[in-house]
Amino acid sequence: MPTVLLTGFEPFDGEKVNPAWEAVAALAAERPAGVEIATAQLPCVFDGSIEALRAAIVEHRPELVVAVGQAGGRAVVTPELVAVNVRDARIPDNSGAQPVDVPVVDGGPAAYLSTLPVKACVAAIRAAGVPAALSHTAGTFVCNHIFYGLMHLLATEFPGVRGGFTHVPYLPEQVAALGLDRPSMALRTITDGLAALVGTALATTEDLAVTGGALH
Amino acid sequence: MPTVLLTGFEPFDGEKVNPAWEAVAALAAERPAGVEIATAQLPCVFDGSIEALRAAIVEHRPELVVAVGQAGGRAVVTPELVAVNVRDARIPDNSGAQPVDVPVVDGGPAAYLSTLPVKACVAAIRAAGVPAALSHTAGTFVCNHIFYGLMHLLATEFPGVRGGFTHVPYLPEQVAALGLDRPSMALRTITDGLAALVGTALATTEDLAVTGGALH
Amino acid sequence: MPTVLLTGFEPFDGEKVNPAWEAVAALAAERPAGVEIATAQLPCVFDGSIEALRAAIVEHRPELVVAVGQAGGRAVVTPELVAVNVRDARIPDNSGAQPVDVPVVDGGPAAYLSTLPVKACVAAIRAAGVPAALSHTAGTFVCNHIFYGLMHLLATEFPGVRGGFTHVPYLPEQVAALGLDRPSMALRTITDGLAALVGTALATTEDLAVTGGALH
Amino acid sequence: MPTVLLTGFEPFDGEKVNPAWEAVAALAAERPAGVEIATAQLPCVFDGSIEALRAAIVEHRPELVVAVGQAGGRAVVTPELVAVNVRDARIPDNSGAQPVDVPVVDGGPAAYLSTLPVKACVAAIRAAGVPAALSHTAGTFVCNHIFYGLMHLLATEFPGVRGGFTHVPYLPEQVAALGLDRPSMALRTITDGLAALVGTALATTEDLAVTGGALH
Repeated sequence: MPTVLLTGFEPFDGEKVNPAWEAVAALAAERPAGVEIATAQLPCVFDGSIEALRAAIVEHRPELVVAVGQAGGRAVVTPELVAVNVRDARIPDNSGAQPVDVPVVDGGPAAYLSTLPVKACVAAIRAAGVPAALSHTAGTFVCNHIFYGLMHLLATEFPGVRGGFTHVPYLPEQVAALGLDRPSMALRTITDGLAALVGTALATTEDLAVTGGALH
Repeated sequence: MPTVLLTGFEPFDGEKVNPAWEAVAALAAERPAGVEIATAQLPCVFDGSIEALRAAIVEHRPELVVAVGQAGGRAVVTPELVAVNVRDARIPDNSGAQPVDVPVVDGGPAAYLSTLPVKACVAAIRAAGVPAALSHTAGTFVCNHIFYGLMHLLATEFPGVRGGFTHVPYLPEQVAALGLDRPSMALRTITDGLAALVGTALATTEDLAVTGGALH
Repeated sequence: MPTVLLTGFEPFDGEKVNPAWEAVAALAAERPAGVEIATAQLPCVFDGSIEALRAAIVEHRPELVVAVGQAGGRAVVTPELVAVNVRDARIPDNSGAQPVDVPVVDGGPAAYLSTLPVKACVAAIRAAGVPAALSHTAGTFVCNHIFYGLMHLLATEFPGVRGGFTHVPYLPEQVAALGLDRPSMALRTITDGLAALVGTALATTEDLAVTGGALH
Repeated sequence: MPTVLLTGFEPFDGEKVNPAWEAVAALAAERPAGVEIATAQLPCVFDGSIEALRAAIVEHRPELVVAVGQAGGRAVVTPELVAVNVRDARIPDNSGAQPVDVPVVDGGPAAYLSTLPVKACVAAIRAAGVPAALSHTAGTFVCNHIFYGLMHLLATEFPGVRGGFTHVPYLPEQVAALGLDRPSMALRTITDGLAALVGTALATTEDLAVTGGALH
């Protein structure tokens, strides 16, 4: 049975919960058929989070790694295409660090592309009744940092392991507590979307030839 | 035990489901304590929908009437403040009618304000963990039509009965099927929000003195 | 030659300039043919602004009154359809007053509709190359207050005088100074739009029968 | 006197004008002091546009190249940080080609970062009174294609030449003709922004250490 490692972050930006971690934990607890789900909660910090991710990969030896992060304000589940070698923190991370225009990996390539079949994943998530769209930027905060770090680890230390990153929306209770008019998604919906993504990413190595492009 | 009449529309605009009716039916099926819930599904047409609403009021003799409608693209539950005496249809209704700048009620006042405690409702919905915000326009399609028609009926034929309207977002499966990057809300979340609205509207006749204002 | 009274507000919400007043002053300075433009700058306060507007109407005896206000964050010129009898201030006005759910006019109707040909105005503004759209809510701050106050004055004291309100976007320099990713519109563009609105509102008493409706 | 090559595209997506080319031509016609402006209008096609760009670089031997493209729907001028090695066309280009998930350059790196001082440029554009923001994705259409092609040319054939890409909003007349509620920017405003970008990019080789980061 293949092993998939799912990671989510601890809460950040003043939140008490992180929908990424909640969905990862919920999916693991459901023990989907045909796959062994391993999980790791990562600290929302620049220094140390990639090391924690590396330790989880070494421990679980997964065939596939999917890192998950909160994108507060986005309306749908958004598998990410591109990880860039940039740290540019608009707010401090959970340790107070706020790097500006520092590479994730000194001397690393400018970017990595996801090795998940991102368009097949978007199609599968939608087919499960969960709104999804391909994203072309994961930002420049800790989410992009861990996405880049993951792809760099896989490229340099774990050949043959595929991986990628997806953002997920706020939970309803987060938006309600903020008192804002912002999108959210129920944990059940996010978890269903994550299940569809994992199943498709495991089963599919050739992506769909359908456009997911953006004019700008 | 007080009776509350909840109405929702049939699907429109090419959809196969209407989250407003789904939430109304779900809440009624849950039989919340302390209240008798009566429901009516209204046709999404200009001609005849107010008559159907009137018949439901006559049949059920409610203390409170809450009409519910789908606002595809909105991110949160939005109790409406103002019903305007305008029909201006951007698309045809379910009978093919598309009135432009015709009053809902000839000779009626330009608008009615909701007699629900809309700010207390927004606060209660949020306290239930469901995103909500006050809205100052219900548009000019069948939703506004039924809202205006309701308030006119209550003002002219059913003194003492309070009422109002709330919009609710798309369900996740609607947005997934459309393949768009638009907000949605799970039926469970919408239903919880509607329950909070109904409970608060029943219990509260004096609204909260907190701002829900918009600069424009 | 007919006289049109144009009003704009002084700056508010921490701004140093108000695009509404700038456009009103610019259009007056251009002395468009076939019309006498009178102007009044109104204070951005609830108490006293309607009185200042009334004084300007008495002084200039216009055939038409168009009040103009800033809608920071809107992308296009938006003639308003509905003025509601509600003051609900999200921020204090320029005198520090912040009324919540107080009527503009005690005992006044719930709303007035613009007596401008709003759809013909939208069409004419667009034909002049300026983005425009009909709006169904002017908010609940001082802009709506003066719009409602204007329509009440015209209905009760100045029969035969037509009037309405339009919102206009931020100027580019306002958004640049705020450092935000928000829409703006150049003063030249706003002024061209206002000229088209005034010319059409003067020439047209029967509105276009085209939809400008909103589903919600 | 240093030479700067500015490029803009021909119209695409059914438009009759391209604000990018209009601004490039307008700035060149103004002959700003201290710089020689060369221009090239590029075809909005995947096949051939990079060759046309290369020919213009060979002809003009610029110190700096700034490619400019239309981002219809964006509200502000957005210098781009990242060019990705992906062609994924949501609509056909002007020759009818619609590649899906094809690299811009076979075997090229996954991405290039702009060698413009993008944050200093954003700050300078804003200081000129023009709204601006850093963007982390140029999409996957012809704009990203030419941006990637430019950076690849500079990296492989023209060492020492710096370059990058900026998107600009629709012109007001485009949005007016579309009849939409979308942001736009006057040609005068865009041109002022482009002038500030060019001046700053010429004078600055060390970027500002200020955050321009995005959480996601």
